[in-house]
Amino acid sequence: MTSVERWGIFETEVRGPSDGNPFVEREFKGTFRGEHETVEVSGFYDGDGVYKVRFMPSFEGEYTYSTDGNFDGARTEGRFTVTPAGEGNHGPMRVSGCHFVYEDGMPYYSVGTTCYAWAHQPEAVRKKTLEELRKGYFNKMRFCVFPKHYIHNFRDPETFPYEGTPVSNAGLSEETFTYFADFTGNDWDFTRFNPEHFRRFEKCIAELMALGIEADVILFHPYDRWGFSQMSQEQDDLYVKYVTARFAAYRNVWWSLANEYDLLRTKKISDWERIAGIICERDPYKHLRSIHNCMAFYDHTRPWITHCSLQRQDLYRHVEYTSDYRARYGKPVVWDEIAYEGNIDMGWGNISGQELTRRFWEASMRGGYAGHGETFVHPDDILWWSHGGELHGESPARIRFLHSILSETPGLGLKEGQGSFDETVAVPENMFEYGYEIHYYGFGRPSYRDFFKGEGERWHVEVIDTWNMTVEDAGVHGGRFRIPLPGREYMAVRLRLER
Amino acid sequence: MTSVERWGIFETEVRGPSDGNPFVEREFKGTFRGEHETVEVSGFYDGDGVYKVRFMPSFEGEYTYSTDGNFDGARTEGRFTVTPAGEGNHGPMRVSGCHFVYEDGMPYYSVGTTCYAWAHQPEAVRKKTLEELRKGYFNKMRFCVFPKHYIHNFRDPETFPYEGTPVSNAGLSEETFTYFADFTGNDWDFTRFNPEHFRRFEKCIAELMALGIEADVILFHPYDRWGFSQMSQEQDDLYVKYVTARFAAYRNVWWSLANEYDLLRTKKISDWERIAGIICERDPYKHLRSIHNCMAFYDHTRPWITHCSLQRQDLYRHVEYTSDYRARYGKPVVWDEIAYEGNIDMGWGNISGQELTRRFWEASMRGGYAGHGETFVHPDDILWWSHGGELHGESPARIRFLHSILSETPGLGLKEGQGSFDETVAVPENMFEYGYEIHYYGFGRPSYRDFFKGEGERWHVEVIDTWNMTVEDAGVHGGRFRIPLPGREYMAVRLRLER
Repeated sequence: MTSVERWGIFETEVRGPSDGNPFVEREFKGTFRGEHETVEVSGFYDGDGVYKVRFMPSFEGEYTYSTDGNFDGARTEGRFTVTPAGEGNHGPMRVSGCHFVYEDGMPYYSVGTTCYAWAHQPEAVRKKTLEELRKGYFNKMRFCVFPKHYIHNFRDPETFPYEGTPVSNAGLSEETFTYFADFTGNDWDFTRFNPEHFRRFEKCIAELMALGIEADVILFHPYDRWGFSQMSQEQDDLYVKYVTARFAAYRNVWWSLANEYDLLRTKKISDWERIAGIICERDPYKHLRSIHNCMAFYDHTRPWITHCSLQRQDLYRHVEYTSDYRARYGKPVVWDEIAYEGNIDMGWGNISGQELTRRFWEASMRGGYAGHGETFVHPDDILWWSHGGELHGESPARIRFLHSILSETPGLGLKEGQGSFDETVAVPENMFEYGYEIHYYGFGRPSYRDFFKGEGERWHVEVIDTWNMTVEDAGVHGGRFRIPLPGREYMAVRLRLER
Repeated sequence: MTSVERWGIFETEVRGPSDGNPFVEREFKGTFRGEHETVEVSGFYDGDGVYKVRFMPSFEGEYTYSTDGNFDGARTEGRFTVTPAGEGNHGPMRVSGCHFVYEDGMPYYSVGTTCYAWAHQPEAVRKKTLEELRKGYFNKMRFCVFPKHYIHNFRDPETFPYEGTPVSNAGLSEETFTYFADFTGNDWDFTRFNPEHFRRFEKCIAELMALGIEADVILFHPYDRWGFSQMSQEQDDLYVKYVTARFAAYRNVWWSLANEYDLLRTKKISDWERIAGIICERDPYKHLRSIHNCMAFYDHTRPWITHCSLQRQDLYRHVEYTSDYRARYGKPVVWDEIAYEGNIDMGWGNISGQELTRRFWEASMRGGYAGHGETFVHPDDILWWSHGGELHGESPARIRFLHSILSETPGLGLKEGQGSFDETVAVPENMFEYGYEIHYYGFGRPSYRDFFKGEGERWHVEVIDTWNMTVEDAGVHGGRFRIPLPGREYMAVRLRLER
């Protein structure tokens, strides 16, 4: 009998009519029943007369299912077995307070990256991207369903999401780029999806899943010359229903309603709320949901928002506000855009690896999370932040090192503890995990630090070089003691109480 | 006949009684008359039966003077000639809008440093300090009249300001240091100054004057084990009158009422206002006046405050608020404490030379001014920020380079102009100086920047490497043009319009 692992994907399909417009005229759905759940999910038309429905089982054991629809042959039924989750499969992501945890209870410390348009690149580039990701630098990837039109991004995507004809990209360049594209010359049927585009995108989601990387799927974005950012409400809703039907069964999916929602000039807050409502209704697995700003933060108190997906609002101080935003929103704070390592002309894409790594630490030591991107000038205009490809920077290895430190947190997650004005002190979120501290000094360069602990206590002390990626034993101490440091930037001291 | 240069010091003395307490029982004053001014100033008792009065003439030409007092022999008279100011003598400092200008009209671009207790060090250290200062890194020095008690500062000063016996410094160390010293064991007569202490201090003022360095004289500060920070109102007033009588004639004096006024626990705002009133009344030359904070800024809108003397209030964003504070106070903004280059344990004293230099540029490009200090761990505890001595850091040469750039500003002073979010653009304060811009990129590392100027305009472009201290010609351009940059931090581009 068919079997699928827990939190895997069970997919079934039927053949049906391909005439007319199956995307809007035909309905197809599935109902899945196990001992602990009964789930009804929408299916989708995948082209060539094929109708599919996908399901992610949340429990082990025997399941039955039935499908139905408004066409002949839609009605089927069957059964399958759900086996235990395989290695590396911890289920979909959940939120616990200001932190993330996989459904199986394993803590998740987000160290994300961004390759907005990697799903739309030629296969050779995509392969390189995956090779880099295989090195384990990151465990979240932000990327867009729609293709991207922006500086360094004028080539056509490999596929388009709709049937139709795109405007030519001839003559496009940084010199002629404008944020206010007109969309003249495009000819799309916004009621007919191009299944190949979505299959391609799903392949990316699945490849990330295989690498243990969460897929932060961006549904809308403003960097557009085709009109996908300016569709009608009906067209938007049709699209959102289509992608939720297709993608929701992938356990690693997060819904990012938009990149820089506030630059999508034709959408109002009510549009985003309506779209969020559709996702809440159509995604039975309740994947994470957020919406990313350019200037103004969205109102992250909205109940449908599971975590804050933030772009920094100031050039100089941003991740240092993490504790403020945790307090304000009571949700995980993810700094998805805090400038990228690189050397392009724009200030959002030309900071050093040291500075980006510092921002990761500043965010993480306050119990928040940060996101990476890379923007080095490249002869063929292949920049990681958009295309993926090869990494050239110094921060990825340091981010992986940070993740290894975060993974040693007792309990679930860190928060900012009491410290001197010139350090960030991270302590476990859960007060019962007392006795674990990381003192991070950022751009400070102390040659030593004094600590004041209880007499007779035994604190195991380590000196962490966050840039050179070393952890050195500094002995066991109690009472007042001094820890020598190298007088360099980016150092931390970790203390663990013997109990 | 006696002659003195304009803005020099004319000093005359009489012999009088030394019995009783001349500091409080005897009055002595002088009246100085030239064609353009008549000035009455208080004299002071200098010990050993000698009474002195000093005068700084503001005009050239013939002067007469008379002295008087409440003792026999106080009455004298005489005349002297005031010759033109000598080389390097530009008169006392004045404020013009948010900038400084010498009385002779020469712009002054403040690049300060701090050696709080250099006046109280052994002669060998003082000489080294002066050798370093001779290299022209700085044009302002902050230092204290009273000796200093603080970490790295437990040795007794060479002299004390009062007659009496200090508490022993035996057993003092960083381990026993506390901000809340008791003053037990001191035995001072706060009505009897020690003239030697003040002569020593005046020598420092004069030595700075000879080097073209402004003396930012700190009258009170909290780092004390002798009780000088906790005197009575009467004692404070006597002290302020004594130092104004002694120091006001030095043209390079600025009055800093306090370092970290808000840590002087026994003083109220009304005390500072009273002290300010005495200075306004007793200093006929109207030297600059300010008061420096630890936490809360003093109310710099007070009319007696000529400029803002600020310590940063946040670890991450501070000099970047320069334009805000200029707008709020309408006075020069001087960031006297923004962390020092060094490697001691404290966050206020362990940033890199790069970061301190960046802070100088960020302040200066917004039409403000910054201050240097240096705190490297030293085997004999000789740290520039307190003792002077030798400089070990990398920032002083860069600060001197910045000053050379500032000195090329057309008109008087810079302000923040319109720029992209990722740059600080400095333009001349005076709009009639249109056609001069410095674009500073701070920690950004652009490989090029595009500029958009009028077609047919001729902009002379230079690339400034603020760290490597180079200015490279980048040609003459108009319309839209691109300037290549090295993709390193701390670069700037200067543009000058040919007119």
